[in-house]
Amino acid sequence: MSLDDNWITEVCEDGGSAFSLKGEHKLFEEQSPYQHVEVFETDTYGNLMLIDGCTMVSTRDNFLYHEMMSHPVLFMHPAPRRVAIIGGGDCGTLREVLKHPEVRHVTQIDIDEAVTRAALAHFPELCEANDDARAELLFIDGIQWMKDAEPGSLDVIIVDSTDPIGPGEVLFTPEFYAACHRALGDDGLVVQQSESPLIHMAVLERMYRSLKAARFSDARTLFFPQPIYPTGWWSATIGAKHGTLGEFRRADVETRHFGTTYYNAAIHTAAFAEPEFFRKARDEWWQTG
Amino acid sequence: MSLDDNWITEVCEDGGSAFSLKGEHKLFEEQSPYQHVEVFETDTYGNLMLIDGCTMVSTRDNFLYHEMMSHPVLFMHPAPRRVAIIGGGDCGTLREVLKHPEVRHVTQIDIDEAVTRAALAHFPELCEANDDARAELLFIDGIQWMKDAEPGSLDVIIVDSTDPIGPGEVLFTPEFYAACHRALGDDGLVVQQSESPLIHMAVLERMYRSLKAARFSDARTLFFPQPIYPTGWWSATIGAKHGTLGEFRRADVETRHFGTTYYNAAIHTAAFAEPEFFRKARDEWWQTG
Repeated sequence: MSLDDNWITEVCEDGGSAFSLKGEHKLFEEQSPYQHVEVFETDTYGNLMLIDGCTMVSTRDNFLYHEMMSHPVLFMHPAPRRVAIIGGGDCGTLREVLKHPEVRHVTQIDIDEAVTRAALAHFPELCEANDDARAELLFIDGIQWMKDAEPGSLDVIIVDSTDPIGPGEVLFTPEFYAACHRALGDDGLVVQQSESPLIHMAVLERMYRSLKAARFSDARTLFFPQPIYPTGWWSATIGAKHGTLGEFRRADVETRHFGTTYYNAAIHTAAFAEPEFFRKARDEWWQTG
Repeated sequence: MSLDDNWITEVCEDGGSAFSLKGEHKLFEEQSPYQHVEVFETDTYGNLMLIDGCTMVSTRDNFLYHEMMSHPVLFMHPAPRRVAIIGGGDCGTLREVLKHPEVRHVTQIDIDEAVTRAALAHFPELCEANDDARAELLFIDGIQWMKDAEPGSLDVIIVDSTDPIGPGEVLFTPEFYAACHRALGDDGLVVQQSESPLIHMAVLERMYRSLKAARFSDARTLFFPQPIYPTGWWSATIGAKHGTLGEFRRADVETRHFGTTYYNAAIHTAAFAEPEFFRKARDEWWQTG
């Protein structure tokens, strides 16, 4: 069947697929100097933010992405005190990071304040930690900020970016990862969203090769569902400045004093299980080139 | 944006979402006595089968569903020799089951031979084990077949059915599960697709309560991605006739002589990790009536 005008549709050109949510009432629209930001009210997923026509966040399913971009990497660092979020203007990752009592300071650097304005108005629950004394929100170029960062000044970097096409592309290069590497302390970890394992294996390969080129000593990918993104199957990739990835503070997960909807210790371990096709590909990427 | 006529769209009414694949060339169409079966050629997912307008199987991503409907349950049974598949007319589950050398006989019972005709013509790779001497294909009512089955005559039952609305609904009732329970041997296991954890928790609750009412002693759900189904996040639920679920023949998985694309020992364990919201709900379903 075809869809009438009461649907909001994102076409994934390279995947040859499209995802639609029912709803037509536009709550927010702003053409910023960087991008076109819109928020729609949907019938079943709450509010939905689009940037340049791509689905970014919905009220109903953002818990998956935001929890998996923050808790695994933070519980893998022995003592995450200083965190930077590149992008993340909807503030949902920031909220999750600030649930960790060990965190002393989080700098969120998103170039486009329009995204945060849209979130404050239509995703207030994601912004509920914005006034935390440990949070600093900057609306400047995150790439330059990272280049200028004091060496060894960060424990965890979360790259909560758009897709690696257009403005987001530079965030997937060895040059950017080298800046992250320098800014991280000895136990430092970087995590970045890494697209769909079904249709974006080329992006994942590029990330692995770029992390290695930037002298990260290990990298691992975690997998999670994300219904509003193409294929509904998403990933994030973690790079370690030194040593190998694997352990996490399991006892701290199990005794945490904050609530989650998706994440727990079992999900942490499970998220790193590699599908057979991915395991074979990663072995090859990491051992060659 | 809106989609032109070059897209095949499935609307998920209860989820308020829709999924589309680019493609317009119809390869197969048959109105059987039971349902409307179509196969389209898509640009990026290979061929796509629809039944009554619902996406059933695509060339590109069916490995996820078929592997996860067969290998976990078969490796959890100590010695799976006698298997029945209710539904499964595309023959993809049958192919995976027959990869297991321990299996001596598989009966596939799908009421609608039109589905298998469509698969033979347009998904020949899924049908490559149909001529295996251990395979028996019946095109009759699977519910009646299960009621008539010899008590204790099956080790594993795989319910590879359509959604629990319309003709598939009876497959989610205590009466059907009671017939399965009787047909299973002492170590017997049943597995059934159980919809999306994001939008079908009511279906999952009903399954747990029905399995318990039919005197299954334990039940566990496994989760996996399935891009062409609503939300892209799918599940299957296993019931045990006796004892508790948890162990599997890990050594046999690791030394298996057949290929898989998704499944392996790490994925097996990971698939059973319960999201925090699901863990809480299941504890409640299982502990109360």
